[in-house]
Amino acid sequence: MHWATSYEAIPNVQYFRLAEVASHDASSDRQWITRGTSVYDITDFISAHPGGPIILHAAGGSIDPYWKLFTIHASSHVQEILAQYKIGEIASCDLVNGEVPCASIRNPYADDPPRDSRLKTLTENPRNAESPDEALSEDVTPNELFYVRNHFWVPPVKEEEYTFTVELPCGTERTYSLSDLKSFEPHTITATLQCAGNRRSHMSAAVKPTNGLPWNVGGISTATWTGARLADVLADAGLDMRSEEHKSARHADFTALEAYGASIPLSTAMDPRSDVLLAYAMNGTDLPRDHGYPVRVVAPGIVAARSVKWVQKVSIGEEESASQWQRRDYKCFGPNEKRLDWDKAKSIQEMPVMSAITGYRIKKKGGGWLGRQDGQKMLDVWGYAYSGGGREIVRVDVSLDGGKSWDQAELLRGEREDGSKTWAWTRWRYHMADPGDGKVEIAVKATDEAYNTQPERFDGIWNARGNLATAWHRVVVGEDET
Amino acid sequence: MHWATSYEAIPNVQYFRLAEVASHDASSDRQWITRGTSVYDITDFISAHPGGPIILHAAGGSIDPYWKLFTIHASSHVQEILAQYKIGEIASCDLVNGEVPCASIRNPYADDPPRDSRLKTLTENPRNAESPDEALSEDVTPNELFYVRNHFWVPPVKEEEYTFTVELPCGTERTYSLSDLKSFEPHTITATLQCAGNRRSHMSAAVKPTNGLPWNVGGISTATWTGARLADVLADAGLDMRSEEHKSARHADFTALEAYGASIPLSTAMDPRSDVLLAYAMNGTDLPRDHGYPVRVVAPGIVAARSVKWVQKVSIGEEESASQWQRRDYKCFGPNEKRLDWDKAKSIQEMPVMSAITGYRIKKKGGGWLGRQDGQKMLDVWGYAYSGGGREIVRVDVSLDGGKSWDQAELLRGEREDGSKTWAWTRWRYHMADPGDGKVEIAVKATDEAYNTQPERFDGIWNARGNLATAWHRVVVGEDET
Repeated sequence: MHWATSYEAIPNVQYFRLAEVASHDASSDRQWITRGTSVYDITDFISAHPGGPIILHAAGGSIDPYWKLFTIHASSHVQEILAQYKIGEIASCDLVNGEVPCASIRNPYADDPPRDSRLKTLTENPRNAESPDEALSEDVTPNELFYVRNHFWVPPVKEEEYTFTVELPCGTERTYSLSDLKSFEPHTITATLQCAGNRRSHMSAAVKPTNGLPWNVGGISTATWTGARLADVLADAGLDMRSEEHKSARHADFTALEAYGASIPLSTAMDPRSDVLLAYAMNGTDLPRDHGYPVRVVAPGIVAARSVKWVQKVSIGEEESASQWQRRDYKCFGPNEKRLDWDKAKSIQEMPVMSAITGYRIKKKGGGWLGRQDGQKMLDVWGYAYSGGGREIVRVDVSLDGGKSWDQAELLRGEREDGSKTWAWTRWRYHMADPGDGKVEIAVKATDEAYNTQPERFDGIWNARGNLATAWHRVVVGEDET
Repeated sequence: MHWATSYEAIPNVQYFRLAEVASHDASSDRQWITRGTSVYDITDFISAHPGGPIILHAAGGSIDPYWKLFTIHASSHVQEILAQYKIGEIASCDLVNGEVPCASIRNPYADDPPRDSRLKTLTENPRNAESPDEALSEDVTPNELFYVRNHFWVPPVKEEEYTFTVELPCGTERTYSLSDLKSFEPHTITATLQCAGNRRSHMSAAVKPTNGLPWNVGGISTATWTGARLADVLADAGLDMRSEEHKSARHADFTALEAYGASIPLSTAMDPRSDVLLAYAMNGTDLPRDHGYPVRVVAPGIVAARSVKWVQKVSIGEEESASQWQRRDYKCFGPNEKRLDWDKAKSIQEMPVMSAITGYRIKKKGGGWLGRQDGQKMLDVWGYAYSGGGREIVRVDVSLDGGKSWDQAELLRGEREDGSKTWAWTRWRYHMADPGDGKVEIAVKATDEAYNTQPERFDGIWNARGNLATAWHRVVVGEDET
């Protein structure tokens, strides 16, 4: 579809002045926006917008500067949806050089908190950063070094204004202040959160490019979380699965203060043994703003994308979250699908077994680095292993010959608040007296208590989104140091 | 230690006549047995015997014929235990050719039920047999073709004499008749049971021999089970985890009517979503004798070794079952342990993701087998995929080039009684129009909803016991048919 520049010349097209568009802002009965030189009445779309009412920021003006920020909209699918709501064109007398003059919008990232410089930045806006290796080698990650995965800006929240709302299937709502949530019996667990894309860069390098943030091994961290059990709050709000109005509900659908949303199965949300928290403390202090201040979901054992930060509401109902992050992202396909059938694929919930090498050193017995001629190398290598669903790691195996033979690493577990299951990673360490001269490839794989283990190669699990990159982690060490 | 043949000649050794040994039978205050020419007072060992009071069958006589039946005793470990209870030797006047004359014992397998000839027999006594391929290609396995894994004989039980006892941590017992169990609300689930050793023969062939029954793909079957929920029966018997006497309990320890025993975590036993049954019906009829008549445990998603058949008791306590099948078997090690540390290894509970090819055909389009020169082959291949913990199979991938490229099989799911989770296998089918000439290796792997998948090779999971042989299943098809 191509529009001529002199719109009034086209018959059967309605033309509007910018002033009329401006009157249809968020406070109006009907909300209009412009995109390019076209005018859209989006009133009936707002409730279906995956980002929710955030779209109202653009009402009465152009949506173009917002779409530049939220590049997810750059798809023909999105444009087809918008096209349904088109009502006309901007009058040519209001165009400047053939375009609608755009007011600049306030940068929503301007209020983001400062970041520790040791984090490994992937993107600034939204903020995405890996934990540095030093933090991955500790049993519990310091708050300031916990990996950051934001989809938008960090919403500014005043503690006294914060509320959390439970919406029951019957439509009843109950709202809690932060101090209300703190009046529930506090529950503390040490839990690992891991991004679905952790180690994505390894998958891309091993097979072919994938679409997503190129995480190395640092899209994972562990903290000790304190909060109210979600199950307790749902019961307090009146959720009763025996009632006729509630019994067909299947999902707990969280929405956040920016625009993010995701859901978990209601059976998980209601099961005390699942230890799902509305967490307000992280390692003994208030949540940092980057990690959901004042309240976030911590759904342990489940992909971190469901542990919604800055959570403001949970809706209990029959359907999964309608958000793009539930329906069009955080799913996993196989290496063989030419066309990704998002509707058919299950959303990722429980995570598979994973491990990674986060550090190593090669030294001579007296300390310092070893010359090749010495022949007395010592290799130390360490990292983490983790599995979803609360499944404990039962073994970590290390191979120096590409998987022909294996030796077992020592498993390290610090002091934890374990909750009902094993929600935290297991760190491991492996020592070898003489790994030989020259370069050595270290391969690591973990096994969890259900005896699942990691695939050897990425070929069989490659997927276009690069999710769940769990193949053996291989690192070549022992460059020709002399 | 070597004993001279003329025992009376050895000072400080006490000698007994056979008649005196015979008086120390099961009805005596103290039970004696002989082994070889030595005499043992086993009274204080009986409660620690992994097989329980079955050992009383030998009291008052020689244990040698029993140990010939139960070859598990042929280890230095067992002999060291027995040595602690030695009290003397048999007087030489009672020996015949230097040996204790053994009475023959009744063959305990004489009452075993007849078996369907289509089952693939591994051992006759005890009875172990695989399901035939034709049964593995059905969604629900007919009772008479369900795989059989017995550790002993099939105990003869009269329905009216059958009882099931719950022993609480405080020592309180409550006993139920079969009709008592049937008075609980019946619960029905379709669940797959799989032996820990299924596909063991593939592991042995791929790497090196393992110790155990050489199962092919038929150590797995699926049935629709009806019974009382174990959680309901435990609650009825008075188990209350809030009480001071009960709250430290962690395991539900089952004992069977022959000598078998095994346990599951109490959290699983008590969780209604775990769907653990005291099952009295299998595919709509009474349990067949080979499958636990009149009552067996069905612990879905867990290794079948915990679904104790002919169950007569559950003891709730702090420790796992002391049976050898909990402590010295049904554990899984890695390829790198020189000495198996049984005490440190966790007992297998939830099963890992698994798949297998159970049938295939290659035909020309008009039917019948194809000559190579035709070039118009069609390949159909099918099988099952299964994962533990109630995790659904989300994909089955098939490769014809050793894992370089994959295509997705069609997943088939019949009518099921699903319970809280996906407890039954998923069958799959794959069709290819032209698999090429000559031999083709078909490889299959499955992925479950936690996105765990199967290892490519057996090298990294080989273990001395050959348990959990989950590597990709590979079958070479297309022999040079002309």
